Formats: sequence, C-alpha cells, structure tokens
Amino acid sequence: VTPETSGVTVNPPAHGRGQPRLSQAHAPLTETVEVVNEWGERRQLAVPAERDLTLYLDKRELVTLMTLGQHPEWLALGYLRNQRLLQSVNEVAAIQVDWEVGAAAVTTHQGVADLEVRTAHRVVTTGCGQGSVFGTLMDGVDQLHLPDAPPLRQSELYRIVQTIRELPSVYKQAGSVHGCALFRGGDLLRFVEDVGRHNAVDTLAGWCWLQPPDQVPDTGLVLYTTGRLTSEMVLKGAQMGVAVLVSRSGSTQMGLALAQRLGVCTIGRALHQRFLCFTHPQRLRWDAPPPRP
Amino acid sequence: VTPETSGVTVNPPAHGRGQPRLSQAHAPLTETVEVVNEWGERRQLAVPAERDLTLYLDKRELVTLMTLGQHPEWLALGYLRNQRLLQSVNEVAAIQVDWEVGAAAVTTHQGVADLEVRTAHRVVTTGCGQGSVFGTLMDGVDQLHLPDAPPLRQSELYRIVQTIRELPSVYKQAGSVHGCALFRGGDLLRFVEDVGRHNAVDTLAGWCWLQPPDQVPDTGLVLYTTGRLTSEMVLKGAQMGVAVLVSRSGSTQMGLALAQRLGVCTIGRALHQRFLCFTHPQRLRWDAPPPRP
Repeated sequence: VTPETSGVTVNPPAHGRGQPRLSQAHAPLTETVEVVNEWGERRQLAVPAERDLTLYLDKRELVTLMTLGQHPEWLALGYLRNQRLLQSVNEVAAIQVDWEVGAAAVTTHQGVADLEVRTAHRVVTTGCGQGSVFGTLMDGVDQLHLPDAPPLRQSELYRIVQTIRELPSVYKQAGSVHGCALFRGGDLLRFVEDVGRHNAVDTLAGWCWLQPPDQVPDTGLVLYTTGRLTSEMVLKGAQMGVAVLVSRSGSTQMGLALAQRLGVCTIGRALHQRFLCFTHPQRLRWDAPPPRP
Repeated sequence: VTPETSGVTVNPPAHGRGQPRLSQAHAPLTETVEVVNEWGERRQLAVPAERDLTLYLDKRELVTLMTLGQHPEWLALGYLRNQRLLQSVNEVAAIQVDWEVGAAAVTTHQGVADLEVRTAHRVVTTGCGQGSVFGTLMDGVDQLHLPDAPPLRQSELYRIVQTIRELPSVYKQAGSVHGCALFRGGDLLRFVEDVGRHNAVDTLAGWCWLQPPDQVPDTGLVLYTTGRLTSEMVLKGAQMGVAVLVSRSGSTQMGLALAQRLGVCTIGRALHQRFLCFTHPQRLRWDAPPPRP
C-alpha cells in the first residue's frame, strides 16, 4: 500500500469492494513548435500533445491508444467499460499508468473470463480516435433501456452550449482536439479533451465509474461532444445512461439509426442559439425559441 | 470471365500481370431525414449514408469498415495497401463488393504470407474512421524515402484550396464527411469523400494503384485532407510518395514528429490565403504572399 492509495484501502466507499488504486500520471498537454505563415514569417504555435498508451489487462496487451494524456487512468478504465470487457468498477484492483514506458496496467481482482475470445474480432468505425470496437459490442444493444426522464429544456441546452464556449480548454490553446462533457440538465459535471473524441468519451465513462453513486445521477444526463453524432458515440453515451446527446457537428446515418432505436435524443449543429434535433424530439422541450432573424 | 472484366483480361496493361477484376457496386450517398429546428419546426435534411463493409482477404475476414460507400473497391484495395498486407496491385486477382451482404471479397493470385501473424496486433489511433492499424506498420518507416522534387509554389497551394472549395461534394449536400484529394502541383487528380478521413485516403491509395503508371507521377504529389494532419495521414501519404500534405485543420504532435522524420512538408489551417507550414518549409516556395490585412 503506497501512501497515495492507503486512504482508499483503509476507507473503502460504501458502494462496493472499494475503489481501484490509481496512479496519477501527469504529462504536458501542449508543445510549442515553430511554424511559417503565409508571408514566410516564423512564429511559435502550440499543438496538442499526443502520446501512445498501451493498455494491459491483467498483463495481456490489448491495444495502443494515441492520447492527449489528460486523464490516462480514467481513459483506461472507460475504454474497458465501453468495450464491455468490464461489467463493474468493482472488478478492478488497480490502474497504474507509467508515461516513461507508455503503459497502463489494469489489474482485476479475479481476472476477466474469455478475454482471448472476446477481443478476437474488430470493427473499424468512423470514430475520431479509438475507432476499434471489439465485434460483439452491438450484440447487447437491445438490452439497453434508457430511463424515462423529464425532457431537457431548450434553455438548459443553451446553457450547455454557453458553458462549453466559456470553458478554458486545450482546444482554445492549441486546436486539434475533441472535447466531451457530461451535464446533468444544464449543469456541468465534467469536461475532458483528447486527440480523439472516442478517447474523450471513454475518459468520461471511466470518470463516472469512479464517482460515488450519488454524484452521477441516473437520469437527466446529457453528453456534449464536439465531434459528430456517430453510432459509437450514441452507444457509448447510452451505456452511461445518457438519453440526450448534443454536438456542434452533424450526424451520420448509423448514428441516427441507432439513436432512433435506443430512444436517444440527438441534437446537432448546436451553436449559439441554433440547433437541429435529429431524433426523439419528445426528450426536448422548446421553452426558449430565439427571436426570428 | 464476365462481360465487364473481359476487356481487362484480354488487354492486360503493360505494368504487370493485369488489373484486378473489379465489381462496380453503387449505393446512394445521402439519405433525407426529418429534423426539428430551434423554433420547433420540422424540416428535411440530407445526411451522409453510412454502411458497413466487411473486408475478406482470400476468404479470411479482416475488418469491418464503416463507409460512405462511394468507391468501395478502391477502399478495399487501398486499405490492404496502407496496412501493407499487399505489396503490389499485381497480387490481386479480383475485388468483389456486394452491398446486399456488406462484403468486399479480395482475392489474390497466390495468397498472402503470414496473414494470421501480421494482423494479430492492433493500434488504435486518432484517425477519423479506420483508426485501427496493424501493429507493425510503423516498423518500415525508415525505409520510406520521399523523392526530391521542385517545391510546391504558394500560388499552386492557393489553387488547391480554391479547387477544393469549388468542387461539388457530399459535404456541401449533407455535411459530416471528410474529403481527401490528390493533386499534382496545383492540378487535381482525384477527389474522394468518406465518413472517416482514413477511409478517404485509403480510397485514394487504392485508386492510385489502379491507374496506369504514367497517370500518377512519382514526384510533385500533394495530398489535401479536410481532417487533421495526424501521424497516420502523414504515413499513408508518404506510402503514396506524397511529400506535401495540406489540411484546413491543424496538426497533432505525432503527425508533426513523423512528418519531420520522413521529410514531409505539412501545411495546416489552409483557408483562403491563410496557412501555416509546420514542417519542411524548403518544399514550399513563397511566390505569392497575400496583401497585408
């Protein structure tokens, strides 16, 4: 038991076997490079960091993720959650990230059954980052049931868009990253960024699992993404209980088809007061229509 | 020998064993959906099509790609080229795409050695679409040598940006797709789109392999992408002999690091007359600086 984990070990939270022990790996999020502009002038520019993180589950190498490195422990956990290789955070004993070797070692208490078989088939998707989804992922789709909840109000939607616009971010410093945020109604719970939007949403999924149950509500969750509303984004959101998905980008056909099937309200092209609701408009209440132009 | 392939069989091109037989699978590229805008009004919107294409190489299932479906035969070929599972188009006997079952069957003349071993390790990257790269891909990087060539002129760069802006596209109709184009200097050779930018560049790589050798020059190739300048984009471009890569987006750190190492000139944030040259500015000639604002 190392000093930074002893508290967790001594005081396990009420909701299970105890939180996993986590490293707290840090690394710089931007780098400055020299570029030349259209007049041939040299200038300095910040670009987002990008590093590889090889994920080991009980010493078995699973995948190498290219990541910004903002929250690698949450990313590792959320990746395993969203790939459904873990059913509960209580299975996890420890997540140790070491940037020196670019490795995230996830250790479970009792091992993961059929790991070899379950990681044998891959699907490559439209995801920015982390396009690889092990093949049986869609099999459980029809078992997902999203909770009934009061609709999101248009005024809350506008607060979400406004909140995102005002947040400090790696994007504002350096561009070229995707952001993902979890809201309850119009209230921000957590914002993360990564070079790929699927890393970002996986990081949120990992973060969720590490919260005490009363910190992340069962209903009223809204997921905001700067990326497109793809089928993977809809699915990963739904696995977190998200029934409303918001993007400033558009949607792909499969994203819409899956949202339709799962009962997810998808809202795209959300910028200032504009937006388009693609699916399940009954989950949105038009309480604040903007003035006509 | 079917009617549409008999010409190829009878008249093999001079550069090898003969072109592969190709199906010509077609499918609609957009779909119209009903959406609700910020005033609660229903309207029609086009979204890009997205369909799954499972790729079989000599009857072995390799991967399922989510694709717009514009040029599935070129995509299948280019994917195998960029994964370095094929060394030459002459290895390929036929590519048959059937949208009824969502399958692309690629048949080689003599089989692919060590296929099982070479597809065992995966890396998940930041790529939009097709983020999965079999693990040994970066191994051959230092064997890539890009040709010396006269620098691209700034005036040609502006012509590239202008050409892209004026092209009809699925993006203009429906948004939410990435475009990729191959140029020689400022002259467009081929433009393709897909839901993921890696599918788009793979499609170009497949198209290149199907051209007579005198149609695609060895030097002076420029690759334009609407997506970010990531390491995979740099690598896939370099494998086509591309020494200048242009994007309207920015760059990630690994994209720049790889471009630096390979000698690729990367130009980002290219919009109207603005741009930033990130790496190897000696491959660009500033012959047309715009007026100062």
